[in-house]
Amino acid sequence: MSVNLPALAQLLPVSGVRIGTAGAAIKSAGRDDLAVLVFTPQTRVAGVFTSNSFRAPPVDIAQAHVAAGNVRALLINSGNANAATGIEGSQDALQLCARVAGHLQISTEQVAPFSTGVIGQRLPIAKMEPAIDACVADLHEDGWLQLAKTIMTTDTAPKGESLALDLSGVQVTITGVAKGAGMIRPDMATMLAYLCCDANVSQQCLNSLVREVADASFNRITIDGDTSTNDSFILAATAAAGGAQIDDPASSGYQLLRDALCSVATVLAQRIVRDGEGATKFVTLRVGGGVDEAECLQVAYTIAESPLVKTALFASDPNWGRFCMAIGRAGVRELDQSRVSVYLNELCIVHQGRAHPAYKEEDGARVMRNEELEIRVDLGRGDAATEIWTTDLSYEYVRINAEYRS
Amino acid sequence: MSVNLPALAQLLPVSGVRIGTAGAAIKSAGRDDLAVLVFTPQTRVAGVFTSNSFRAPPVDIAQAHVAAGNVRALLINSGNANAATGIEGSQDALQLCARVAGHLQISTEQVAPFSTGVIGQRLPIAKMEPAIDACVADLHEDGWLQLAKTIMTTDTAPKGESLALDLSGVQVTITGVAKGAGMIRPDMATMLAYLCCDANVSQQCLNSLVREVADASFNRITIDGDTSTNDSFILAATAAAGGAQIDDPASSGYQLLRDALCSVATVLAQRIVRDGEGATKFVTLRVGGGVDEAECLQVAYTIAESPLVKTALFASDPNWGRFCMAIGRAGVRELDQSRVSVYLNELCIVHQGRAHPAYKEEDGARVMRNEELEIRVDLGRGDAATEIWTTDLSYEYVRINAEYRS
Repeated sequence: MSVNLPALAQLLPVSGVRIGTAGAAIKSAGRDDLAVLVFTPQTRVAGVFTSNSFRAPPVDIAQAHVAAGNVRALLINSGNANAATGIEGSQDALQLCARVAGHLQISTEQVAPFSTGVIGQRLPIAKMEPAIDACVADLHEDGWLQLAKTIMTTDTAPKGESLALDLSGVQVTITGVAKGAGMIRPDMATMLAYLCCDANVSQQCLNSLVREVADASFNRITIDGDTSTNDSFILAATAAAGGAQIDDPASSGYQLLRDALCSVATVLAQRIVRDGEGATKFVTLRVGGGVDEAECLQVAYTIAESPLVKTALFASDPNWGRFCMAIGRAGVRELDQSRVSVYLNELCIVHQGRAHPAYKEEDGARVMRNEELEIRVDLGRGDAATEIWTTDLSYEYVRINAEYRS
Repeated sequence: MSVNLPALAQLLPVSGVRIGTAGAAIKSAGRDDLAVLVFTPQTRVAGVFTSNSFRAPPVDIAQAHVAAGNVRALLINSGNANAATGIEGSQDALQLCARVAGHLQISTEQVAPFSTGVIGQRLPIAKMEPAIDACVADLHEDGWLQLAKTIMTTDTAPKGESLALDLSGVQVTITGVAKGAGMIRPDMATMLAYLCCDANVSQQCLNSLVREVADASFNRITIDGDTSTNDSFILAATAAAGGAQIDDPASSGYQLLRDALCSVATVLAQRIVRDGEGATKFVTLRVGGGVDEAECLQVAYTIAESPLVKTALFASDPNWGRFCMAIGRAGVRELDQSRVSVYLNELCIVHQGRAHPAYKEEDGARVMRNEELEIRVDLGRGDAATEIWTTDLSYEYVRINAEYRS
């Protein structure tokens, strides 16, 4: 089940990035579940990592290797998260990084590992080592679609997006892939995303870009409020397109590139929501009229994660009392309910904290039947605004998560 | 659906409290949906009210009337929450209070109103006024079971409990009723609870008791994380049993009474959880080893409200990775996962942050199949501990909430 998941556009190769994939039968045989990405030496890499304090060993390793500033390859597997595996889990991840490094004649610290899948089981190293050899033998520039497929877990479709842009006369290509499905919440959930471009960007600017892009895209989606042990978003710039280095966040080059990266990342983030576990609706939540963006986000997430709102969305029931209840418990201090309005698309349902006089339930029900829906809240106390994306809560969500391992 | 909901014990009359109920066909005909409680003049009343800032008009009125310190009657209806109804909603509630007051020859400010049910619709005043007259005509001391039935909404069974105790030679009776079902979370959710005793308690001690009792019972339960616009818990002491006034929180009388009230309130709170919407499991979450109780509660609630944990509970799947994930995202600062343990009843599943070496999944699955289950977390960083009660998330929960109004 998914909501209006558009067909995947062609994923353009990014100069300076080669990809190889292979099947290691980590969870089940018959599909690729291991991928290696290799960057040209001048590439800069930045990342943001899960805020969950029960982090998987590979997350700590990837973060440390990225922080060291000289990552040349990524090693990604699906089917097993290598999470809650302790010191042995770290050793396993490092051993696999070393295998990649040996092939490429780089150091283990230049390889960043990523895992997604079931928690609490050791990686099947013996099967993965020969598969790494196969990945390296497979390296080529056109591997993006296969990469998107390889990292899938409960996703029903691969997620990717490309964009070509002119950056002050230099032709730059951006391509990204992601995997998501359940457990999606801000600050990274069981989500892996890789965005590469061939622009020439200073390390400092790249570090700033990865934050800005995450905050505008992956940190604005929620399926069920749960975050994961393994989430990571990596941004790489190979400089292979040439041109002057972008080294000033105030420059137009930086801003053009940021907007383009945000646009690609937003498509990926929204694809994750559209493919949310059991999703039957894609919902945009806009909250405005707040004192600051933080309280707008607070209200947006409280509505988006309320099981009562989510089941009403599933039932196409314009039960606006549940929206009000969620707004009311979001923890906004001194909220005056008599200034609050709520809209479904263009239909005003709540005005001055109560049902709009002209509101008819059949009008609300008609809007709620749409697969794509906007809920707009005006808090009536300031000028800040924000927007996030979410889904409903269906029988199918319960089924998928109750039967995940059977 | 409900989990091991025990048969209701006999609800004892409390001297000084008379109850009358009637049917006003507020949502549907054929059942009592309106109740009046009348207290003898020397009664003291205290309350705690929802923290939701989208409060229903009757909640503000009830709180103000209780604060004024001279409440003599309660007026309670099910079927309509009189929420998000603005100034007209306030006027409706006050008009109904005035009707009660007229019969009893007291002032409107001596009547506290409570409503539960659908949000956003005006009360059917014209039908309720004659039903109030019928309630007053029906006043008697033995109305507790009928009261418990009258306030039900999606509850599958009435909730009540009684206790008789010897308080320094004085025979005291405590009787309470509650309604709950969905939307249950601490700080009061769509929950109404009324606890009366015939002890002689100073207003100051009663104000302190109502907080202590709420914190030990109703503020420790969660079904789905949603709180409501109408939740209220009222504690009344009629003094009709006689005896010296309890006026010191350090006295043994206070402490005996508190423990007895907590015991009755805990039974009511647990009955609400056992009757949680679509519940198939009753789960006790004990979190210990914390630096303070606040962080223990934080972890307990994050686990209890995680949709992934709740669906795993429904599936009897000992997916302990989901417990770890929830612990990890609870926001405990500088949590060291290598000191964390997790137990299912007496079975240690996570030790030092990873699967216990002796843990076998079939053992976990066996424990998880119980309808009553304890999840115990040791954070390994301090001496604080806490306990809350919750349920799983089933297909039935989605059905009830998706079809609530159809």
